[in-house]
Amino acid sequence: MPGTMTQKIEPRTGVAFTLSKGDRLSVIDIQGGQVADLLAFNRNDVREVICAGRTFDYLSRIYLTTGDPLYSNRSNILLKIVADDVGRHDFLLSPCSSEMFRILYGHARPHHGCFGNLANALAPYKIEPDNLPVAFNCFMNVPVDGNTGCFKVEPPLSKAGDQIVFEASTDLIVGLTACSAPLSNGGSFKPICYQIAKAI
Amino acid sequence: MPGTMTQKIEPRTGVAFTLSKGDRLSVIDIQGGQVADLLAFNRNDVREVICAGRTFDYLSRIYLTTGDPLYSNRSNILLKIVADDVGRHDFLLSPCSSEMFRILYGHARPHHGCFGNLANALAPYKIEPDNLPVAFNCFMNVPVDGNTGCFKVEPPLSKAGDQIVFEASTDLIVGLTACSAPLSNGGSFKPICYQIAKAI
Repeated sequence: MPGTMTQKIEPRTGVAFTLSKGDRLSVIDIQGGQVADLLAFNRNDVREVICAGRTFDYLSRIYLTTGDPLYSNRSNILLKIVADDVGRHDFLLSPCSSEMFRILYGHARPHHGCFGNLANALAPYKIEPDNLPVAFNCFMNVPVDGNTGCFKVEPPLSKAGDQIVFEASTDLIVGLTACSAPLSNGGSFKPICYQIAKAI
Repeated sequence: MPGTMTQKIEPRTGVAFTLSKGDRLSVIDIQGGQVADLLAFNRNDVREVICAGRTFDYLSRIYLTTGDPLYSNRSNILLKIVADDVGRHDFLLSPCSSEMFRILYGHARPHHGCFGNLANALAPYKIEPDNLPVAFNCFMNVPVDGNTGCFKVEPPLSKAGDQIVFEASTDLIVGLTACSAPLSNGGSFKPICYQIAKAI
């Protein structure tokens, strides 16, 4: 496709970049079984950011797929999912972090996780770590038991080359990772690829 | 109990107050069938706030009850639930707001909702509206279908006089409402009462 170039996010790292209204972002699970945490902020006012609590409310659903919008904390649509090969992603859980690796995994010298990768990548845009919300975790597979509310983090359902495609509804700053949590990724860390197709 | 006094939150309003470490807050559904949205911020640094995404992750569960902690965005415990007559609350959905009443209810001149009530009550503590996260919605009844991820907002299971009791794990600023959304409260707006039992 003209104007697109595949970028690679190495295992356990993250990046940030801008999108303009109408641009399409493809997040590609190049090897399969790998999660990518995605955050999006309004480029004109970074206090506006994707919000799971608003999105769930407006959709009456916690799982998102093709056709679904991602709403902001101000109830505006920031992104829409325009294609999805997988149909199972997570919008419940915060990005993995050093504290999470200590608490859930017992790591004494924990990796800084997607949270650290996102915080570092978004710092040049003057986005503070405390203002990173729950990410949209592409390909993350978190089945919930509706009776007890208990959930498990299972390996992603994505196969090599599967992708999810977002369209920017406004000008955005996006943070994107190749997730660092063993449980989320079937026990091995793999890269994530992405492509940006400019609107014009 | 010495040192306690029952306070009343009128229908569709909200308040804010401080708690010190060890204080206990009882949220009482005085008439039954009424939701109360609760927010808690670290009193020494209001950038630290309760966080559904971290709490879910550490509990592996989306429904909370007696014994469960509420974690912050920095992975510290801000509150613990020490008693609970009801056993069904919500931590998925953002506070109702004017935008929500427009989008979900089609109201042309919408009420400002729990979001407006919390924003107004927390403004004196220099807490910005954009920094209000998903609230812990006491008594809110949101059963989730684990297969589809679809949920419904059902009337609360709380009967008149039922309560949930929280203990502050650190010094806090708390926002608390009598929820303004018809669907969340079985179609009628009722008051919420609360009591604070000081630690010493």
